[in-house]
Amino acid sequence: MLAIRDRVRYVETDMMAVAHHSNYLHWFEMGRVAYLRACGVLMLDLLHEDIVTPITEVKVKYRNSLLCDDEYEVQTTLSEFNRAKLDFTYKVIRLRDGAVAVEGFTRNMFTNGQGKILRLPPKWFEKIDAAFKAEQDRAVK
Amino acid sequence: MLAIRDRVRYVETDMMAVAHHSNYLHWFEMGRVAYLRACGVLMLDLLHEDIVTPITEVKVKYRNSLLCDDEYEVQTTLSEFNRAKLDFTYKVIRLRDGAVAVEGFTRNMFTNGQGKILRLPPKWFEKIDAAFKAEQDRAVK
Amino acid sequence: MLAIRDRVRYVETDMMAVAHHSNYLHWFEMGRVAYLRACGVLMLDLLHEDIVTPITEVKVKYRNSLLCDDEYEVQTTLSEFNRAKLDFTYKVIRLRDGAVAVEGFTRNMFTNGQGKILRLPPKWFEKIDAAFKAEQDRAVK
Amino acid sequence: MLAIRDRVRYVETDMMAVAHHSNYLHWFEMGRVAYLRACGVLMLDLLHEDIVTPITEVKVKYRNSLLCDDEYEVQTTLSEFNRAKLDFTYKVIRLRDGAVAVEGFTRNMFTNGQGKILRLPPKWFEKIDAAFKAEQDRAVK
Repeated sequence: MLAIRDRVRYVETDMMAVAHHSNYLHWFEMGRVAYLRACGVLMLDLLHEDIVTPITEVKVKYRNSLLCDDEYEVQTTLSEFNRAKLDFTYKVIRLRDGAVAVEGFTRNMFTNGQGKILRLPPKWFEKIDAAFKAEQDRAVK
Repeated sequence: MLAIRDRVRYVETDMMAVAHHSNYLHWFEMGRVAYLRACGVLMLDLLHEDIVTPITEVKVKYRNSLLCDDEYEVQTTLSEFNRAKLDFTYKVIRLRDGAVAVEGFTRNMFTNGQGKILRLPPKWFEKIDAAFKAEQDRAVK
Repeated sequence: MLAIRDRVRYVETDMMAVAHHSNYLHWFEMGRVAYLRACGVLMLDLLHEDIVTPITEVKVKYRNSLLCDDEYEVQTTLSEFNRAKLDFTYKVIRLRDGAVAVEGFTRNMFTNGQGKILRLPPKWFEKIDAAFKAEQDRAVK
Repeated sequence: MLAIRDRVRYVETDMMAVAHHSNYLHWFEMGRVAYLRACGVLMLDLLHEDIVTPITEVKVKYRNSLLCDDEYEVQTTLSEFNRAKLDFTYKVIRLRDGAVAVEGFTRNMFTNGQGKILRLPPKWFEKIDAAFKAEQDRAVK
């Protein structure tokens, strides 16, 4: 699990005066990108090798809302991984009271820039797999 | 089912050169708002009566991507409705070839501006319920 | 001048319950893309020839605000054009009362994908120049 | 001058593979909100007293582009302030090489929730004015 923190931007609020529900997909993505960066995998490096990671599935349950300027933590866990897909689960925590704001799930696959499915090359696979095995070890304990 | 059409905006693309996956939540919302407008229910009128409609759940399956300027149709269906919740399903169609771009589901509940759950007042309930019954009749046939 | 129409999306509102000021840059872009499309110039076609059109300057004056679902018209005028730059001016009209919501200006230049400045090739120059000359003729009369 | 730092989000890139030009308005706003927070003025506290701060003018010059994951610093300076308006200037610095990415200017005025112009109440005026005087002192030296 990797945790990142940020604040709700003014522009992210809507006329209900809470963070609009679509922003959580941006924050999941920030968690995912940070997780992969911590593995040594940068989105730009993948792109330069013509590897892209389209999303194929998203699920979100919304529990509590966030206000403008609210600080939140995105907790990102790699829950399933192989050469064909990357599954993450997320918890967004509202830091002023520790409430769970949302819980989410995303699945990415690997394709080239033309959308042709590919298997993640070993060089990248190994970096992410090390983190995945560490996650699995923690989950077992 | 209500269909609306639009084009992918330049700003909606990302560095993979396709519409970013979070935009589909915006497009579902456009479909939902148009659906309710067709029932005679405007978001601003609800807000003026201190009724807000927070999202509690979203699910999306991504099938095919859209490019900048691609025309799409959002097909919005009211799949479940009572005084406590509003469920919609969505199909986004890529118009240049008729491919399904994404399929989605959302659930809204009703609360006041302070987040207290409420049951939708009869005045609004009846407008939406007429559309819901018509959907159900079509589904049966 | 080319006019396009759209409605304020729910997600485009902020906690002041009006369209957030950054959306106007998206709407100017929609006007600009529609203007160039009407000239026979598609952003994707340019991109395929490694021509990109970065913005170098934006100015906006905000006069009146727009609410959720408000219909607006973006009036886009090509005000200056040569092989090195593309200047547009914009008016966004609030259709319920004809009020000017904002007035704006943008400048684009032409570069390749690596950011090297280039002069627009004749094939594309001529398409846009025909529209520019027609604008100039209208302005004179 | 107040400096804040962040990274370009994946969703903020566009099909040119750089941060879309509209995001800078979001980042200016983050700088502005942080500046006011440092003065002891929170946007939510203003809203609770029915004070809103609509933007009336924006100017941006774009110098250098930012890539996905690029770290940047927003340098926000209060350049003019009285009971009727709030002017800020901004520099966004690309941290990997210190290049200026953009320079900007915004003007906010003060109104109530119905758009009626008001003069900022002394309680808030004094907090911001202390920061403004400190800026002026620094500028003189």
